[in-house]
Amino acid sequence: MPVQLNECPVEVVISSLSGRWKIPIYRYLYKNDQPVRYSALQRHLPSISKKVLTEQLRELERDSIIERKSYPEPRPRVEYALTSAGRSMIEFLDQISEWGVKHILSKQETQQS
Amino acid sequence: MPVQLNECPVEVVISSLSGRWKIPIYRYLYKNDQPVRYSALQRHLPSISKKVLTEQLRELERDSIIERKSYPEPRPRVEYALTSAGRSMIEFLDQISEWGVKHILSKQETQQS
Repeated sequence: MPVQLNECPVEVVISSLSGRWKIPIYRYLYKNDQPVRYSALQRHLPSISKKVLTEQLRELERDSIIERKSYPEPRPRVEYALTSAGRSMIEFLDQISEWGVKHILSKQETQQS
Repeated sequence: MPVQLNECPVEVVISSLSGRWKIPIYRYLYKNDQPVRYSALQRHLPSISKKVLTEQLRELERDSIIERKSYPEPRPRVEYALTSAGRSMIEFLDQISEWGVKHILSKQETQQS
């Protein structure tokens, strides 16, 4: 029997991207073709606490949007990158961005006129 | 000076659709070409409390995804419908659904094998 989706895929995907820092983390990893160190993410997102950054990364990893690689060196190195599935989200994220610019701008213009 | 987007459009759109009942409400309104009464929404979503349904509808209205019409009749009638902007979200919502089915299914299959 084929695997049944026990949840609505749209709800699952929207919730996997909900969370104050998920989109900024996604965007930074998308712009970097190479895996990115935890410390680089921290520098890029200075106003996020270590605890919250770790949580959001763990959730993105659980949802298979990013992958984590750790290197057992004297000073342990941990790097993050988008999975191929994660990278392919860009198709609908670009559409969401276009929709957002069109409808948010028109709403702000009516509010300011 | 053109209106500046003070927020990332993707973050704004994702947050406007985040919330336990927003997608089920959207889907029900999308399937109905005609405006839908509050009571019909309640019957369609029996496990949602009146308070939460009212809140989620108010947020969707604030974000211009739905519109609310009230009819000052002896027994006041309130109806909801998607705005044209709201209805046009279906383009990326369908893409999200396809991505979700593809990636959630493949994840569930690996977890069950």
